[in-house]
Amino acid sequence: MLSTLLKPEILELIQSRDWSVLREILADSPPQEVVDLILDLPKADRVFVFRALPRDLAAEAFSHLALEEQDALLRDLTDGETRHLLADLPPDDRTGLLEELPGQATQRLLNLLDPGDLEEARWLLGYPEESVGRLMTPDYVAVRPEWTVDQALSHIRRFGHDRETINRIFIVDEGSRLLDDVELRWLIFEEPEARVEDVMDHSFASVAAFEDRELAVSLVRKYDQTVLPVLDSGGVLLGIVTVDDLLDVQEAEVTEDFHLVGSVEPLRQSFRDASLGFLYRRRIGWLIGLVFVNVFSAGAIAVYLDTIETVVALTIFLPLLIGSGGNAGAQASTLMVRALATGDVDATDWFRLLGRELAVAAAIGVTMSAAVAAVGAIRAPEVLLVVSLTMFIVVLLGSLIGMSMPFLLTRIGADPAVASAPLITSIADVTGVVVYFTIANWYLGLG
Amino acid sequence: MLSTLLKPEILELIQSRDWSVLREILADSPPQEVVDLILDLPKADRVFVFRALPRDLAAEAFSHLALEEQDALLRDLTDGETRHLLADLPPDDRTGLLEELPGQATQRLLNLLDPGDLEEARWLLGYPEESVGRLMTPDYVAVRPEWTVDQALSHIRRFGHDRETINRIFIVDEGSRLLDDVELRWLIFEEPEARVEDVMDHSFASVAAFEDRELAVSLVRKYDQTVLPVLDSGGVLLGIVTVDDLLDVQEAEVTEDFHLVGSVEPLRQSFRDASLGFLYRRRIGWLIGLVFVNVFSAGAIAVYLDTIETVVALTIFLPLLIGSGGNAGAQASTLMVRALATGDVDATDWFRLLGRELAVAAAIGVTMSAAVAAVGAIRAPEVLLVVSLTMFIVVLLGSLIGMSMPFLLTRIGADPAVASAPLITSIADVTGVVVYFTIANWYLGLG
Repeated sequence: MLSTLLKPEILELIQSRDWSVLREILADSPPQEVVDLILDLPKADRVFVFRALPRDLAAEAFSHLALEEQDALLRDLTDGETRHLLADLPPDDRTGLLEELPGQATQRLLNLLDPGDLEEARWLLGYPEESVGRLMTPDYVAVRPEWTVDQALSHIRRFGHDRETINRIFIVDEGSRLLDDVELRWLIFEEPEARVEDVMDHSFASVAAFEDRELAVSLVRKYDQTVLPVLDSGGVLLGIVTVDDLLDVQEAEVTEDFHLVGSVEPLRQSFRDASLGFLYRRRIGWLIGLVFVNVFSAGAIAVYLDTIETVVALTIFLPLLIGSGGNAGAQASTLMVRALATGDVDATDWFRLLGRELAVAAAIGVTMSAAVAAVGAIRAPEVLLVVSLTMFIVVLLGSLIGMSMPFLLTRIGADPAVASAPLITSIADVTGVVVYFTIANWYLGLG
Repeated sequence: MLSTLLKPEILELIQSRDWSVLREILADSPPQEVVDLILDLPKADRVFVFRALPRDLAAEAFSHLALEEQDALLRDLTDGETRHLLADLPPDDRTGLLEELPGQATQRLLNLLDPGDLEEARWLLGYPEESVGRLMTPDYVAVRPEWTVDQALSHIRRFGHDRETINRIFIVDEGSRLLDDVELRWLIFEEPEARVEDVMDHSFASVAAFEDRELAVSLVRKYDQTVLPVLDSGGVLLGIVTVDDLLDVQEAEVTEDFHLVGSVEPLRQSFRDASLGFLYRRRIGWLIGLVFVNVFSAGAIAVYLDTIETVVALTIFLPLLIGSGGNAGAQASTLMVRALATGDVDATDWFRLLGRELAVAAAIGVTMSAAVAAVGAIRAPEVLLVVSLTMFIVVLLGSLIGMSMPFLLTRIGADPAVASAPLITSIADVTGVVVYFTIANWYLGLG
């Protein structure tokens, strides 16, 4: 898309410490190419390019870096340089930075903020983590209903320059309560002497600052808007959230769900840059937890050792049978976790979906039963019936467990994605062992 | 957010067939409330409300319905009503509809389009499925660089009314080649007599019509834009894609990945509305496929039946050991599938990440080995060493398989998400059985 022809030239200038030429070239380059260039540079060289950039461009490029990269760069900049950079950052990016940097770095930055920005940052930081308040920026433009369109447009021309977006203009009363919002274009299309209240339709979507940020994502999707006003409990307009930030939220939430369904504690940072110790800690907890689930299968087998000693051929089908129950369960739980996350089904739908799952699982169970009978007929005809019957039952039970667990977790206030494939598989293993040997004992007249 | 006080009133009017009052109430209601109302109504009643709506509102409400609901509603509308509705739909929504409805319904709709819309629909449909071309709308506003800002704004006022968005204005040459794009606000802030070319920075992000739609999502995210211009190979501006459609694309792609990692064939439709037969077919293929993977574990166990007969206590730990290898593998593959999907790592990173995975997996393996030794010390001290050593090796192998499989799939042009937890678990089962009994034979001096 954008050329990165600049790179070798820039690296040469850094090598030769030729700051004035570097400054000149950068000032004349299209902003997006400069941002791309910085993302591409070795980390150690970035600070030189940053120093040579015009201030607004430096702030923009900074916003595009990952947190770890921002942290590294801030360590390289002097206090004076950092102060300038912070002042130029949009408030929402500044909040994000203060929120996520290590404690000591945050303290240094707060000390470098000018008094107004400091107050704003502290205010924004007062909202709970993952709330809409943490995402919002006060960078909007508001007008009054009694103004003429001409007055409103003058106001927008005067104050709209440095705002995050003016695609949507907010109409507020004297107490800053939101009355309506309107797309900028409708003001442009209106006669200059018309009143703002004439373009109002008194219908707008908004979100409360203390709500979960996922609600903002779903509202933006529902109403196809690129900006959403954020209100306090009294209807006062506090700020706006923009779709570009919400796209990032959506990706972060999806990544959390992905990690959970793979039974990894959500990383909430780049996988690429994660340290060995961090990855170990995010994985080991669930694995050890699952060992304790599987201890029950070990216990169950220990109970049936006599049965196994009598018909040792039963062991042949053990992994196949318990694995199939787990696989069917993993399918059912994945379908449900995703349907709950997208709002396709909700927590009250369990009973209504149960009948459908039973029917599908029964059909799958019959098919799987036939498949394993075909395999078993050659290998071990003496246990054929036990194996087919077990297959049917474990597929049915695995599916029911997999399908129900996400609802159960939602009910107790946990994330449904905790019903990970490995967790369902492990529970299905225990169930499978018990079912298999119980049927075997009964059929073979043992126990 | 929005009140649905209207609903009982509307239902009563439908009951009493009081169309004129219904028409009046609906025309006076805020559009978003009407849309919410229709989404809430029983399907059979929707057609009555639709008939009573002003045309533009009917089209907007229609766009918010799910495909199945649109299909049902179209069956209830007369040809004349359908023709009006189609004419009022934005072109991109019309393409989506034509693309996804059953063949016969599409043919009926194409016959009802007016000649201009028909040509447009056919043209839009010429782009490959899931390409940017299928998402784009020609509803943009373009201006010329030599115009004054005042001329440009007049043009926008004249032609911008019914366009999807005019937040971003496109600047093209006499051959419709895109020269630049600019936010509407920068034109408003400029002096009326300035030239459009004075606000140009000759730097813009764009996407080719034949590219995968996922590229458009990543570009919009990268450049924080709400609209992206779509070009042909000659740089001619064909249309635009908007962030609201891209949010839907992102969700659809994520759902596909989710289903794949749960080893379900992607549904590509609502789970809630899916039929029993459809769900069966989406699940059974993978399950049968996994049975054939697990036949190898059955085969491996059959080979070692003598070993099991000699030390039947080995069976106790079988599900625990092969399950743990599978769980570690599922973690590794999930992390990798998601990191590849977000672009956090790319297909060439395999070798670089291999060393890290080995180190993390080794540490996890040692911990798991200690955990299972603690369990085994009580249950079966005679096989303690075999069990601990096996645990270490299966965790290591499972992690390597899980981590590598997504890369391998990418290499052969498949979706990395095919490396589902159940697939990795089943492969780890086979590996685990072989490792366990090989070590047991060696340690116990058998075989």
